[in-house]
This record gives sequence, C-alpha cells and structure tokens, in this order.
Amino acid sequence: MWRVDAETLESLALGAGILGTGGGGNPYVAKVWARGELDRGARFDVIDPAEVPAEAWVVGSGGIGAPTVSVEKLRRGDEEFRALRALADHLRIEPAALVPMEVGGGNALRPLVAAAQAGVPLVDADGMGRAFPELQMVTFFIYGVPACPAAIADDKGNAAVFTAALSPRHLERLARTLTIEMGGTAGMAMAPMTGAQLKRTAIPRTLSVARDLGAAVRAARRAHGDPIQAVLGASGGQVLLVGKITDVERRTTTGFARGHLRLQGTGPFGSLMEIDFQNENLVARCGSQPVATVPDLICIVAQHDAEPVTTELLRYGQRVAVIGIPCHPRLATPAALEVVGPRAFGYDLDYRPLAPAPTPPPWTSL
Amino acid sequence: MWRVDAETLESLALGAGILGTGGGGNPYVAKVWARGELDRGARFDVIDPAEVPAEAWVVGSGGIGAPTVSVEKLRRGDEEFRALRALADHLRIEPAALVPMEVGGGNALRPLVAAAQAGVPLVDADGMGRAFPELQMVTFFIYGVPACPAAIADDKGNAAVFTAALSPRHLERLARTLTIEMGGTAGMAMAPMTGAQLKRTAIPRTLSVARDLGAAVRAARRAHGDPIQAVLGASGGQVLLVGKITDVERRTTTGFARGHLRLQGTGPFGSLMEIDFQNENLVARCGSQPVATVPDLICIVAQHDAEPVTTELLRYGQRVAVIGIPCHPRLATPAALEVVGPRAFGYDLDYRPLAPAPTPPPWTSL
Repeated sequence: MWRVDAETLESLALGAGILGTGGGGNPYVAKVWARGELDRGARFDVIDPAEVPAEAWVVGSGGIGAPTVSVEKLRRGDEEFRALRALADHLRIEPAALVPMEVGGGNALRPLVAAAQAGVPLVDADGMGRAFPELQMVTFFIYGVPACPAAIADDKGNAAVFTAALSPRHLERLARTLTIEMGGTAGMAMAPMTGAQLKRTAIPRTLSVARDLGAAVRAARRAHGDPIQAVLGASGGQVLLVGKITDVERRTTTGFARGHLRLQGTGPFGSLMEIDFQNENLVARCGSQPVATVPDLICIVAQHDAEPVTTELLRYGQRVAVIGIPCHPRLATPAALEVVGPRAFGYDLDYRPLAPAPTPPPWTSL
Repeated sequence: MWRVDAETLESLALGAGILGTGGGGNPYVAKVWARGELDRGARFDVIDPAEVPAEAWVVGSGGIGAPTVSVEKLRRGDEEFRALRALADHLRIEPAALVPMEVGGGNALRPLVAAAQAGVPLVDADGMGRAFPELQMVTFFIYGVPACPAAIADDKGNAAVFTAALSPRHLERLARTLTIEMGGTAGMAMAPMTGAQLKRTAIPRTLSVARDLGAAVRAARRAHGDPIQAVLGASGGQVLLVGKITDVERRTTTGFARGHLRLQGTGPFGSLMEIDFQNENLVARCGSQPVATVPDLICIVAQHDAEPVTTELLRYGQRVAVIGIPCHPRLATPAALEVVGPRAFGYDLDYRPLAPAPTPPPWTSL
C-alpha cells in the first residue's frame, strides 16, 4: 500500500498525462481538484492488486467525455462517486476497492477522489495501461467481465444504471449518448468484478508506472537534465519526431474530440508527420507510412520540459517531441487487437509493434 | 374485472386511436400485435382501480418514441415487459398490476401485452386520459409520484434504469436521448407506485372509456348510422371542422414527429383551420384564433367512418372531421396546466376550455 500525497500527486498527474496519449481528460484540471480534496483532508490510498482478496468486489471508475469538454466545463466533483453509489446500490454490494478504467490523463486521478469519497482504496492497476476513447476498450471487458451493469452520473444530480447491453460496444453507445445529453462529461462506474477477475483482466501497477514516469521527468527538470530522455528511460519509449506543430484540425463531435495534426521536424522516419486522434492519438504517419499505431502509445510532449500536450491543448507552433511507447502485452493479443487495434478505429492497417528501444517498457518487469 | 377478447380489442383499439389525438403509437400495428398474443393464448385482464390494494405495487407501462417510427420499425414485442423486469429487479418488488402511461393510441394496448407477459392484470386507468408526447406529462408525476426509478428497454436486448433525475422533465430528456439511440422506439416502465398513490394520481376508467367509444363507433357503422355522431355522443366532443386536409408538414426530429397541417371545410369557427402537432395535436386555430388547445383533445377522424387519422398517416386530400373533446378535470388544474397546458409546449396562450357540448364527457360520471 502506498499513499498519494501532494508531492506524489504532482508526479502521478505528470506521468498519467504522458500515458494519456492526448486523452483521458485534462490532467491539470483533475490534479487541481484532487489537490483540493487532499487539502480538505482526503486520504488517497493505493493498494497492490495482490492485496485484493479474490472474493472482494472491485469497481472500475473514471470520467467519460471529450477532453475538449473536460477543460471547459467544471465538474461537480462527485460524479464518479455517485455513479459508484448508483451501481453499488443497484447490485446491493459494498465495493472493497476501486480501480481506474484508464491510467491516462485526468482519469488516473478522478478514481482517487471517488475512492476517498467512498472510503476505500484504489487498486494500482487499470483497464487500458494508457487512455482509449471508448468504454469497450478496457481489458476488463476484453477478457470477460460482463458489460452490465454499469452506471453513469452527471454534474446535475441525474444518474442511470445500464442493466443490459448486447455487448460492451452497445454499452459505449448508450453511455456516450447519455453523456452528450448530460453536457459532454459524466462519471462512470463499471465492470464490477471480484478480486480474482481483476487479477486476470487488469493491467497491473500502472499507477506506479505513471508515478515513476512523472517523478523521473521532474527529477530531470530539477537537475537541468533532459526531460525527454527521462521519459524515454522511464517508459521504454523512443522519439518518433522532434519538431513543431504546423497544423491542427479538431472538432468536438458525437461526444469525442476528433481531428488530426501535422508536424515538421527531425526524426528517424522523415521530417513530416501527421497524427490522427479521437480523444487519444491513434495513428502517426510519415508520408503515407504508418510509424506508430494503437494500441502502442503515441505521446506528444513539450520539447523543453516534456510536459504532456493533450488533445484539447494542441495548437499551431508548439515545439514538441512525439514519443512512441510499446503497449502492455495484454493490449497486443489477438482478442485485444480486435477491440483496440487500428482496424477497430476504422483503419485498413494491421498493428505493427514499435521496434524495441534500448530500455524495455516498465510493464515488462511487473 | 373485465377481459379484453378479440372483439373487445377491436373496440378498444378504435377508441384509443381516437383518444390518442394523433399519437400514442400507431393503433393498428399495436392491435395486430395484441391480437397475435391473444391467438397465442394470452389473457388480457383489466381490473378497476378500486380493486387494487392500497399497499400493492403498480407500475406505469407504455412505449416511447415518435409515431412516425412506430409504423415503420417493427418491435420485438416484449420491450415493455423487459423494461418492467429491469425496474422490478432494480427495486426488488413484484408488481401486482400495470397501468398504462397513456390511454391514447397503441399505448393503450402495449401495456395489455406487457401485463399478460408478466402474469398480472392491467388497471382500468392511465396517466394522461389521452396521449401526450413527453414523459413528465403523466398525472402520476404531476401529482407527486417520484420521477425515478424508471426503466427503458429496446428491441435489441439493451436496458437501463434511470436511478436519479432532477425532475420528471430531466427523466424525459434522458429517456428520449436513449430512445433515439435505440432506434426511435423503446418500451418504458415508470412511476412505480402503491395502490393508494395510483388512486390519488391516475385518470380512472379510461380503458373503459376507450372501449365504449370504439364500440359506439362500430355499432354506428354496422347500423349504417353516423359514426361521427357516435364519437360525439360517447366522448362529449364537438365538431370543430369537417373538411379536407390541404397541407401537411411533418418532420421526425429530436425523437418526435413535429409539424402542422392545414384544413379547409366547414365548421363553427370558419372554413380554414391549422393544427400544430408534436406527436399529438396541440393547438387548432381558425385564422389566428385558437379554437382548441392542449390539454383538451383535438382528434382527427375520417369523415366517412370516424377511423382515427394518426399523425404518421396524415396526408393531403384526406376528408376528415376535427373533433374537440374536453379533457379530464385532473388535467385542467393549475398544477397540471403547468405541465400540459399550451405554455408548456411553448405557446404564448392561456388554456381556454372548450365550450360545453350537449353530451358531457364520459369522465365526468366516473
């Protein structure tokens, strides 16, 4: 068990922002909110998956919505907690712990707050090992946790429980539709599962990965070292391009921030790059050649301090580094690629893993 | 207690179609479906509100969606029943009876089927004494039954329970949004209430009214009498215009069939009439003068046989009679007019009741 204090929160938010690959909700807004909860006396306890009893109930937690909305619409602050209560009351269970749906972006932090509000710890794991735009893309569902029940709550006091869905994809569509009606963001509680199911389906120790990644970058900044190198060392990533954003097209539509950006700079694959995103960065191309695709992580960070540049903050002229990080092996199985591979996003592309970097990604040792 | 057999079903469907004021779902499609259920051995029992024990659970039942969709998209046939199961399972209750949300159109018949599927009787009452387009417009909510929980189920197997809504109007917005995503129609179970609450809030014996209205029209047809006069006699209505439809503008938008029609003919208020509808007919005007408005019933029936012409079937050239029927007094209280009066639909008009007709409406004696 470890605890997230104000200092750890800084590292966690930074690392989660990088792992968010553009999405997961604005990490700064989520951090300020979590920091406020800490100042008001909240306790953010994180337990290892091994500490969760096999029979205990664990519930997935996080926000749903477009990152462009997450930075403009203030939240009430208990959306995830009220979704959890709706789900737990429906099932008549008392969850022993929460687990983040995704470790990327603000969605690494919101479950900390919800867990504290519920008086339970958060499990050091998640359902994506990064961020993805759609609910069916959690490993919980990919590896067999049922899609229903799941619950949603908004900032106004409305809540609903999805009691039957033909598939996790149907759950996504219904929840997304309600999210749009609810104003573009909401809190979710989903994938209620036992400790045994959690251990079989989750991506383990990703909160630790985010924390250590953020801490490495902060240490490099303090030492006037190279924050980009710190990202690579702590993530097993590789630089795909260093340069400048020359164009951004971004629309908030059907509940997502969709678009693409162009970059110019230097890198191993050429001097021009184009990246498509749906909340998260999906495919990076040099010329017509894909150089990185989902489920591998395509992270955009500022050149000078490796601060993550999330989808809603992309703008012309920013000097950035594009870093590719190999995904966790649980995202690269045939079953997972059906849900989170390039074809699941409509691309006529097979997944080709990133070439190995000098440092292995942190999950290989977990 | 009375039973709906194939013969009664004909009368009930006809009367409900007239009381639907254009909406409530296509009565023919609902009748064919209910008839099939009868042929397969279903038993449709109807009990008087007085027969419901004060402590027993009663659940409101009906379809949600645009009438234009109800005539084009086939239903699975157990949408209302599965919504009921979702609601009853959520609450851990066993309903003793169902009650129609609205007695108008197909929504008088769908709850018969759902009740038979659940093995319980249907209460001879409803929440509108006609049809209205939106969920908050049931007397159950107007007179204090809470908006949540309520459940929705579609034709594919998806279902959700709304566990918290700021108001019945919020419930309507959330349910309508899901209905659109579900394909434009769905089944609802809502306003779970005790027998005592039912008696305090429902419009009583409206299934009997619909049955008797339909039977009177059918008798007039058989006797080569005047079916329009039969409608007036059985409903306390008055003819507002007899003539021909000269224009129809109708769009299915935001989950509703919206538009207006023009008529030319003869009547006590002039020769030209315009009627606005949102699923149901809302306001009838002669010149700029409103001659009938919600909550009074504006019913369009064929001139020659008094067959109801529902919103989705309106077309240029039809010879029709427009009949105004005074609403039940429970719809004309200040509390009810806030929800179902002309201003609730965006009109800058006060409700002015129809002038009394020679025959009083049937509800005055119930």
